[in-house]
This record gives sequence, structure tokens and C-alpha cells, in this order.
Amino acid sequence: MLAVFDDAATLRHALAFESALACAEAETGVIGEGIAARITAACASISIDSAELADEAALAGTLAIPLVARLRAELSGDPESARLVHHGATSQDVADTVLMCQVQAASRLLLVDLDRTLAALAVLAERYAGLPAIGRTLLQDAIPIGFGLRFAQWLLGLANAKARLVSETAAGVVLQFGGAAGTRAGLGGKGAEIAARMAEALGLGVSVAPWHARRGNIAGIAASLGIVIGALGKIARDVSLLAQNGVGEAREPAIPGRGGSSAMKHKRNPTGSQIALSAALRAPGLVAGILAGLPQEEERGLGGWQAEGPALVDLFLLASGAAAAIADIAEGLEIDEAAIARNLARTGQDAGEGADIGESRAMVDAILATYRSRF
Amino acid sequence: MLAVFDDAATLRHALAFESALACAEAETGVIGEGIAARITAACASISIDSAELADEAALAGTLAIPLVARLRAELSGDPESARLVHHGATSQDVADTVLMCQVQAASRLLLVDLDRTLAALAVLAERYAGLPAIGRTLLQDAIPIGFGLRFAQWLLGLANAKARLVSETAAGVVLQFGGAAGTRAGLGGKGAEIAARMAEALGLGVSVAPWHARRGNIAGIAASLGIVIGALGKIARDVSLLAQNGVGEAREPAIPGRGGSSAMKHKRNPTGSQIALSAALRAPGLVAGILAGLPQEEERGLGGWQAEGPALVDLFLLASGAAAAIADIAEGLEIDEAAIARNLARTGQDAGEGADIGESRAMVDAILATYRSRF
Amino acid sequence: MLAVFDDAATLRHALAFESALACAEAETGVIGEGIAARITAACASISIDSAELADEAALAGTLAIPLVARLRAELSGDPESARLVHHGATSQDVADTVLMCQVQAASRLLLVDLDRTLAALAVLAERYAGLPAIGRTLLQDAIPIGFGLRFAQWLLGLANAKARLVSETAAGVVLQFGGAAGTRAGLGGKGAEIAARMAEALGLGVSVAPWHARRGNIAGIAASLGIVIGALGKIARDVSLLAQNGVGEAREPAIPGRGGSSAMKHKRNPTGSQIALSAALRAPGLVAGILAGLPQEEERGLGGWQAEGPALVDLFLLASGAAAAIADIAEGLEIDEAAIARNLARTGQDAGEGADIGESRAMVDAILATYRSRF
Amino acid sequence: MLAVFDDAATLRHALAFESALACAEAETGVIGEGIAARITAACASISIDSAELADEAALAGTLAIPLVARLRAELSGDPESARLVHHGATSQDVADTVLMCQVQAASRLLLVDLDRTLAALAVLAERYAGLPAIGRTLLQDAIPIGFGLRFAQWLLGLANAKARLVSETAAGVVLQFGGAAGTRAGLGGKGAEIAARMAEALGLGVSVAPWHARRGNIAGIAASLGIVIGALGKIARDVSLLAQNGVGEAREPAIPGRGGSSAMKHKRNPTGSQIALSAALRAPGLVAGILAGLPQEEERGLGGWQAEGPALVDLFLLASGAAAAIADIAEGLEIDEAAIARNLARTGQDAGEGADIGESRAMVDAILATYRSRF
Repeated sequence: MLAVFDDAATLRHALAFESALACAEAETGVIGEGIAARITAACASISIDSAELADEAALAGTLAIPLVARLRAELSGDPESARLVHHGATSQDVADTVLMCQVQAASRLLLVDLDRTLAALAVLAERYAGLPAIGRTLLQDAIPIGFGLRFAQWLLGLANAKARLVSETAAGVVLQFGGAAGTRAGLGGKGAEIAARMAEALGLGVSVAPWHARRGNIAGIAASLGIVIGALGKIARDVSLLAQNGVGEAREPAIPGRGGSSAMKHKRNPTGSQIALSAALRAPGLVAGILAGLPQEEERGLGGWQAEGPALVDLFLLASGAAAAIADIAEGLEIDEAAIARNLARTGQDAGEGADIGESRAMVDAILATYRSRF
Repeated sequence: MLAVFDDAATLRHALAFESALACAEAETGVIGEGIAARITAACASISIDSAELADEAALAGTLAIPLVARLRAELSGDPESARLVHHGATSQDVADTVLMCQVQAASRLLLVDLDRTLAALAVLAERYAGLPAIGRTLLQDAIPIGFGLRFAQWLLGLANAKARLVSETAAGVVLQFGGAAGTRAGLGGKGAEIAARMAEALGLGVSVAPWHARRGNIAGIAASLGIVIGALGKIARDVSLLAQNGVGEAREPAIPGRGGSSAMKHKRNPTGSQIALSAALRAPGLVAGILAGLPQEEERGLGGWQAEGPALVDLFLLASGAAAAIADIAEGLEIDEAAIARNLARTGQDAGEGADIGESRAMVDAILATYRSRF
Repeated sequence: MLAVFDDAATLRHALAFESALACAEAETGVIGEGIAARITAACASISIDSAELADEAALAGTLAIPLVARLRAELSGDPESARLVHHGATSQDVADTVLMCQVQAASRLLLVDLDRTLAALAVLAERYAGLPAIGRTLLQDAIPIGFGLRFAQWLLGLANAKARLVSETAAGVVLQFGGAAGTRAGLGGKGAEIAARMAEALGLGVSVAPWHARRGNIAGIAASLGIVIGALGKIARDVSLLAQNGVGEAREPAIPGRGGSSAMKHKRNPTGSQIALSAALRAPGLVAGILAGLPQEEERGLGGWQAEGPALVDLFLLASGAAAAIADIAEGLEIDEAAIARNLARTGQDAGEGADIGESRAMVDAILATYRSRF
Repeated sequence: MLAVFDDAATLRHALAFESALACAEAETGVIGEGIAARITAACASISIDSAELADEAALAGTLAIPLVARLRAELSGDPESARLVHHGATSQDVADTVLMCQVQAASRLLLVDLDRTLAALAVLAERYAGLPAIGRTLLQDAIPIGFGLRFAQWLLGLANAKARLVSETAAGVVLQFGGAAGTRAGLGGKGAEIAARMAEALGLGVSVAPWHARRGNIAGIAASLGIVIGALGKIARDVSLLAQNGVGEAREPAIPGRGGSSAMKHKRNPTGSQIALSAALRAPGLVAGILAGLPQEEERGLGGWQAEGPALVDLFLLASGAAAAIADIAEGLEIDEAAIARNLARTGQDAGEGADIGESRAMVDAILATYRSRF
């Protein structure tokens, strides 16, 4: 996931933007085919130190300015081509499009670990659907449940959260292309067509108009990540509670190098849960930061959209770390049936009408059926 | 909007829950028809001081306990009916279902003001699509746009935000019914059917399983409200910037009693924008609070779901206040074409190629077409 | 706490502002003594429906406009006095000063419950300092501690949080008085003296200059409330974990009408902890909302300061509810020494070197000494 | 600022912790002097790839485990010394102490840019105290102010914010040393003395007890950073508003490579303000994340403290970036007196009683006097 957002990936997507722009402009007759070919070739061959470029971008306040300067220098032998690099585009077009390409890639990567978790939870839910266990509410013993219902509920929560992420990215991962003030001016009326071709080339969706100061899609993606992380945090919360010594119903699998204590060698810490719980504490504020930036100024705002990128990156990194940790847990969760039975027996509800978990089992079946048909 | 969430409405929905529960349990043969009739009658006839009940609920930590106690007292002449009030349900079933009924009503109310705003913006976008104006980016004059493009962009941002709210509420406004530990125990396997009948009676959606500790739907609704408020805040930001004395391109309509200054009588303050901007500052933290509560404990959590209600209420109140203020602005916005022309002329881009707003106009048309076909 | 912030209190403080302003202006020779006397008399005798006024204020966007209009109407027989009501002040002067009076009162009220908690924790810390118990880290059994160390740590966390609140309110609860643009214009150079006299009369601190758009004091108070709530939430977290059936080392006192379950009559829920945990989920976002408003525009901003009041009120209400709940818990906590011994024995560290709690005890003494000397 | 928090610095501080621990334990007779000398020598001479260590730490969930393993390997020739590395300490002792060392360094670095800004603002405030300008409230022209009052207000806001940061770090930057469960067990009663000596050696404050699960100091530092960033954001907001083409009273200095537009070469964007405004959007959520983690579990929590470090680092990076940008602006702000005069004249309040800025000037003097005596 780090590689998705690193300087090299950023540079690669930015060059892809400039290249796709030149092609689309040639295809629509806005610039010459030869010029587009030379720009595209320069994008392919130019050698740029991505860390150095990142420093210049930090100073300039935008990546596009130093990048375009270098492309123009690369094309200095052909002034016309040099001039037509980045034609009709603005810095934010590049920045937003690069971010969208990265969101696309990050989201696909994340889905892998989410799907791994979902599959493992489905197995656990089925396997333990009929195992009577004490249910707990408000952190107190309540009445019996089927132990597998917990997993089914985790599954459903995560499946719903995943579905929201999928639909938000499907709708919201769109090309940015609007030029200086979002009007696609100076392109002889071909702006919309250029945008459509660029989006196609870059594998992104297309919006009916640029969205320089209309950031609902970013906010929607961020919120859906926040909810995914929350759903993972819910699982982590429960695992860490079940793993308490006084409960002992389940614990994280042993993973070499993870979960040890520097002071107590016998201890096995719920380190995977810790990763997800830590993510779940950090994510809400990151989402809030993006929401707070929505009232952006006029045609392209000051400070608002620049604040989104780092927060979105952090959200993906948190989601990814949490998803991997929870997938490992789901796949290797150690369940102690004796402890489950003992804890239930202690409540005196272990037999007869008390332990009525038939509907619990039916509920697991219904959840699994929904999951299999809908997600 | 205040009435949607007040003590009286809360009581009314809670009684509707108990009534629907009794009916559904009678229809599925879990309790007798006569008993259900007596419970329903008690729910209809009982006289409760809603403020007094709210006080007792605050102490008890839940509304259901004092409410059920009163219903049982009302039915004290018939111990069997008294005993079967609230049969198979838990406090959180009532609390969540009441909240969902209120979210349903609140959301419908909010849509009225959002639709009012959208309609007014469509008119403005069309009317001013071809009026050349200076576009502004990073708070600096940039290049010309069609003045109506601003309205079209506001429209599109708000329409998308509304669509997300509609889909989140359509999916997420569901009955809560699970009993003590979310298993629908003690109902002879009729739990799912009872839930379906109750949802139908109360006009709510139904979930495949209770969602006591699976709160993604609440978080999704909260986030969609945050984005609606952000889209309204975006409009307010721009109106307040356009209304600056050094810009003067638009200003809020005069509304009797609004926008005056206690120190300067000549001044007209952008008070409607202030309401929406203030809401846009408050909303992100409220959403964050709900996201932070997602990792709820076990079958029903401690503190997490109790934190959601007040935040959701605040979000609806903020959205409603902002939507009404922006609807008033959109319907009565005063536009100064002379100032627009003057500001454009000052940049020296008022004629010829500079003022290329043809594509700007096409973009407005495309946005309006999308709006009309999709929203 | 509700009464501190209700419409009646708001009105009372607003009238006190206008009255103190008139007195101070008379004392400094800016207005006549007779005029001040008539204004003061009007403030004392005027009858205003505070709910009605609140509605007008909501429309106007400020309380001062309808209030001043009514005072002027009350003084309509004496046009000169009527004209000089609110002389040199602006709406925000009234709004901010009223809020500061309320913060002053709220903070005092809150300290009572905090001190009650601290006193009870000191008793618990001392009493249980030498009782060996298993310490828990990362939700796993670790090594023995003195059971009282927990209480001492809670005490220290809360005492530090209280100290921050006290210093933030001591520095930050200051009069607002600056007039239309924060210059105290039109007062013949007497502005600073008038401010000093008003602050004295209203029992508030005084700032070297108005702080209409400089809101660090509000943010500091809000953050200190957030930390107080967090320190209370820490106590609640631990109480709820200790009260789990599989742990059973402590539980909340039984309070009539609190903590019951509508589905399981035998259950005692940690409802006091729930209140504090719920507050601890809501507070961070409220603080964030206030921080987000800091970059307020120019001499007096649009939307930023209007967003602070409601958030600050909520923070005080949450702190107050949490503090009262935790004070009740601290004063009545039920401790099960047998369970403590049993849980420790289970780890096999109950005797000899393992149970080295001597330093734990010394630590409790050191904390109590610090608490007694510093707080 | 990046160097303060990079992997190499983290490693350096962690080795300094282990070294200081061994020394302090030798000085108090807990371990032998020779052993301490060998451990200290190993800490000084060991060669560790800090990036590789960071990867292992990420897996282990803590830095201490792989670090201590390497130190022990380094000392494998002397099993007793190897065993006594990290004696009496726990992972979190290292992690928190390292963070505190970094906060100490970061805070000193930040103060340099804050002081640079304050000095520059004092000059501006004095120079322009008597220049009449139109004041603006709610984004509307109001009444005249002395132009320098703006700078004095910025100064006061930032000076207060700085003072809070200084006092929070003075009180809160303390050594962490408590061992496995925060009892300083196994050290023969010398724990407090060891802590005092370590704190001295590392240049940190000392707390009366470990603060593994008592995180008010971290929250206080985070909040004070949030307020510093807000105070910088306030300056940025005003600069960006003053620099609007329709206002034109001030603009950011030209800095080579900064503020250009990739689409419009003539444009000078307020890029420094953008940096600070962007920081001001991101900071509140980061503070909220830290506040949300306060209710940490038992003796050492799960997820809460692990979430603090990255957020605190981000806050320092944001504060640092914003402070440097605003310092540059304050030192080089371009002020257009003609525009100021023109904007004032347009309101018709440019002469006579209207332009009463005498008290404005006195206020600037009073603010500067306060600043010079108190900060």
C-alpha cells in the first residue's frame, strides 16, 4: 500500500496524465499528431528523480509546475511541442487525477484483504453457528447465543462497509480535467470529448464537469474508508475482549515476531487487534478533516483540496494495515470451546430453555445466504 | 425539525414500537390476540408526561424501562397482558427503532428544503449560463467563466450529496429487533417474521439480523448528512465571498429581521451563509464522534450507541437549518450584473479569446441535463 | 448545568451586560449618570419572554438586536436613554460576554463533582494501596500491582485535567467589548477603562484587546474540557472492564432506577460508566469543531464564532453528566477482594517475588502527597 | 522537522534510553557498574539499519523487542550484561520516552519559526498602527480601524498559543519509566530514583508515577499544537482575503519557485497561506483522534497510545510547515497603502469622526507592551 502512494507512483501517474492529455488532444484535433507523439515519447523516456521532484513540488505548492518545466526542458529542441505540454490543463487537474489513480489502485489492494477476511469469517460463522456461548451486552453476561453469530455479525458489518466503499469508488474515482478555472477553455469546444478519452485511457470514470471545488466524491470515499476501519475495529474490539484471561474464549493466532512483550516473555498480546483499534481511533478525525474542507472557495479553493490527499493516503494505509491484521486473525483465530462452555455454565443458563440458540443459528444461515447472494 | 426529535415524538414512536410488537406477536401466534389488543389499546390510551418520562429515562440510562413499567401499571388489571408487554424485546430495540423512525421523518423534511434549493439553482444556472464573469481560483482572479456555471456546480454538488443521503437512508433506516442478546430468543423461531411485520407496520426497512453492535448504517447516514452540510457550506462560502464589498457580484436577499447589525444599521450581513458555514464547521466533528463509536463491544456495546442519537439529531438540525437558509438564498439571490462586468473588465480579459465561455455554457447545459435525468 | 445555559440565564446575562455597560460609561463620563440609571432600571424591570426572544435571535442571527430593540421600546419615553442603550457595543460583545458568564458558572459547577470524585478516589487509593492484584496490560494479565494504584492513577489523571481546566478558565474567561470592528471607537478614548469596569462588575477577566476573531481562549477551554472528559472516560473504561463477570473485581454501586435491563431483570449494567464513555466518544469531535473554527475572518468572522457556543455548551453538559456519574461510582464502588485474590492466584504470581507491590504502595503515597500539596 | 521524527532519530533516542537506564541502575546499585559500562558501550557502538529495525518494529507492534534482541546479540559474549539490558523496563517505556525526546526537539524547532513570526508581526503592528483602513466583519465592510491592529491581533493570538505550547510541553514532556505494569517492580525500591536520574540524563521532566494509561499530557500538547496551527491559520485566512484582487491591501512576498500557476503565468497564488490553511483543516481531526484515545484500558492500553505517535508527528509537521510559511509572509508582506486608502474612501468613512482610529492605535500599543513584558 505504501508503494501505491509513494513518490515514484505519483510521478508515474502524473506522466500518464500528461501523456493521455496529449493523445486525447491529438485525437480531437486540438494539437498535431506529431506533437502528441513527441510529448508522449518524452513522458515515456524522461528520467526524473522522484524525491527531488517531490521537494520542488512542496516548495511550488503543486507537482505540475516543476514536472511541466522538466518536460518542456526535455522537449526544448521542439518549442511547439514544449509549449503544448499540459495544454489546457491546470495543476489541480494533475494533482486530483493522480490521487484518483492511486485511490483506484489502493482500493483494489484493500479489497483483497477485506475479501480474505470475509471468506474466513464465513467459515467461522458456519462452523460455530450451533455452539452455545454466553452473549454479552453492556460488558455484562446476558443470555446465550450461538458462538458463530458473532462471526456472522462481523461478516455482515464488514460486507456492508465494503459494499459502500465499492460503490463510492465506482462513482467517485473520476478524472479531473477542467483547466485554469474549470471551464475547459481554449480547446475549441472539445473539452468534454478530451476528458472522456483521457478517462478511458487512464481507467477512470468521467464526470459531467470538473469537480475542482466540488469534493463530495472525496468525502464519500473517505467516509466509506472510515466505516470500513470501524467495522474492522469492531472485530478487533471483540477479539481483544474474548482474549482476556478471565474470558479466554478466543485469541489471536501466534505470528512469529508479533505480539511479544519486552518485559513478560510468557505473554501473548493481541497485537493484530491493537493495529485495528489504533486505526479506528485515528480514522474518524481524518474523515472529519476532509469533511471540514468541503466548503471550498469559488472555482478552485485555497487549502481545502490540498488537505485531502494526505488524509486520504493515511486512511488507506490505516485501512490496509487493519485489514491485513484482521484477515490474519480471522484466518487463524484460536477458539477455546472448553472456555466457552465454562463461561456459559457459570451463568447457569447452559441448558434447557435458557440456551435457546436455535434462532441464533437460523440467523447465521440467513446472514450467510445474504452475504453469498449480495456481496 | 425540532418537533421530529422532541420528547413527545420519541414517546409516540416508542409506543408505536410496543404496539407493533404486540400485534406482530399475535399475528405469528406468539401471544394471544386478546392480549395484543389490550396492549395496543393501552399504548393508544395511556397518558404520559413526555418530559417526566425523559427524566426517568436519563436516570435509567434507557427509555424502555420506565415506559414499560408504566404500560404494565396501566395493564395491572390483567397480569398476563402486563407481563407480555415488550415481550422478547430489549431497551435498545426500542431506542434504535425510535431513532430510525425519527431519521425517516427528518430525512423527508430535509429533502423538501434541498429540493427547493436545487430547483432555484437550476433556474439561476440556466439564466446566467452565458453571462461572462471572472473565475477565481486560490482566491485570485483567474480566467472568465459563465456566471451560471457556479450555480450549476453548486447544484451538482448538492444533488450528489442528496442522492447519497437518499440511498443511505433507504438502505439504513431499518427496524431494530433482537431481544436481550440479539438472538430473538424465546419467540419460538418466529423472530424474523415478527421483525418483518413490525418493520412493515412502522414503515421501516428490515435487516437480515439485528444490528445492535453493527452500526455502519448509522455512520453512513451521519456521513451523508455531513456531506450535504458541506455542499451547503460550499454555497455559503461562495455567496459570502461574492457579497464582499470589494466584489459585490451577488448578495443574499433581504429578509425582515435577519442580517442586521446591532452596531451598524446600514450593514446587511450574510446571515444565511453564516448559518450554513457554522453548520459546516460543526458537522465534521459530529460525524467523527459517530465513526469513533463503531468498534462497539460484543452483542450490545457500552457507550457507543448511546453517543449516536444526540449527534445524529444535531446533524439533522444543522442540515435543516443550513438547507432552509440556503434555499432562501437560492430563491432570492440578488445579482449585480454591472459589478460582474466591472470585475471582469478590470482583469482585461473581458473580450475576445480571453472571455471564452462557450464551453462553460455547454457545461451548464450538460449539468442541468444530468440533474434532470438522474436526480 | 442545563439551567446555566438556558434561555433565561442567557437573557439575564445579556441584561447584565447592557446594565454594566451603561454604568461603566457613566462612570467614565461617556454618557450621563441619569441616562445610565434609567437604562439600568430598564434592564432590571423589563419583562421579556426568554423563549420568544430566543426565536427572534435565531432569525436575526444574534441576540443583541431584538434585545436592544426591546430595551429601547421600554425606554421610548426618553429617546436619549433609548438611543444610548448598547452604546459603543456590538452584537458579538453581548454574545461572547454572555457565553463567558455561563462558562464561569458552568466551570464552577463542574468543579464540585470533580472534587467529589477526587476526594473519593484518594480514599480508595489509600485503602487499597497494599492489596495485591493482577495488573493488566494490552488487555492481558501482566504482573501484580497494588489495587489502590489504579485509583491513584485515576486521581492523578483527573487532578491534572482539572488543573488545566482551572488555568484555562482563569486565563480565558474574559469580557468581550470592542464595538463594531473591535476598536472601541466612539468612546472618547475611554474604551479600555470601560472594559475594565464592566469586567469587574460582571466578575470576568479582562483582555488587553477585544478577541472577536482571536479565539484561542475558547479553544483552550474546550480542549481542557475534552481532556477532563477523557480522564473520566478512562475511569469508566476501567470500571466497566473490572465489572465484567469474568473479572468481577469491582462494580458500580446500585442506584435506584439506574442500570437495569428491560430484558434481563437480574442484570446490573454499568450505566454510570456508560454515561462517561458515551461522553468521551462525543467530546473529541466537539473540540475539533471549535479548533476548526479558529481561522476566523478579519475583524469579526462569519460562522466560526457562531459555531462555538453550542459546542461549548455540549462539552459542559457532557463533562457534567460524566463527572456526576463518576463521582457516584467513586463514592460507592463495590470492591470484591475475594475476586481480586482469585484472579491474582490464577496467574500463579500471588506470592513471593512475583507479587512485589512495595513500590506500587510507595507510588500511591507519592501520588497522594502530590495531590494534597498541588491540587 | 522531518529529521526530528525519522527512523534514525527514533533509534538514537531508543539507544539513549537503554543507556540511561543502565547507568541509572548502576548508580543506584541495582546492576553492577561494569555491566552498565558494557551496555552503554554496546549502545554507543552497535550498528543498526534504522529502516530495517522500523520494519521489524512494525511487525512486533513495538520497537523495543527487536532493539533489545539486537543489543543482547551484541552482548552475547557476556550473558549477564545481555540479560540486564532493558532491565525493569517495558516496551512502552521506550516508545513513550522516545516520543517525548522528539516532542522536546520538535517543540524547540517550532518555537524558532513562531518567534520569527512574532517579531515580524510586532514590527508590522507598530509601523501600521496609525494607518486608517476599513475594518471588516462578517465579510462586510464595517468601520475604520488602524491597519496595524490586525497585525497586533495576529500577534496576540499567536503569542498566547505559543505560551500554551510552552507550558504544556514544560509540564508534559516527561520520562516514561514504569516496567511491565507501571509499578517499577523488581528494582528493590529504587524505581523512583532511577526514573529521576534517567530523566536528568535525557533532559526530560519526571512524573510522580508512570503515565502509561494516563495520557493527559499528550492530549494537552496536541491541543496546544492545534491552537497554534489555528492561530497561524487565522493569519493565513486574513492574508488570503486581503490579497484578493478586489481588495488588494496586502499580498504574500514573492518567493522564487512558489505560488506560480501552471495554467496562468501572470498569477501569484497565496501559497504560503494555503499551507497554513490546509494545516488548519487537518489539525483538528488529529487532535480529536488523540482525545478519543484517552480512555485507555487498565495499566497499559490497547490501541490508544499506539495511535498517538503518528498524530503527534503530523501535528508537529503541520505546525512547522505552517509556521515557516507564515514567518516568511510576516517578514515580507507587501502592503499597498493606496489600495487601503481607496477601499476606505469607498465606504465614505475616510475622514472625520468615522475614521476614529485613535483607540485602535492605543490598543496596538497596549498589545505590544503586553507582548514584550509577558512573552
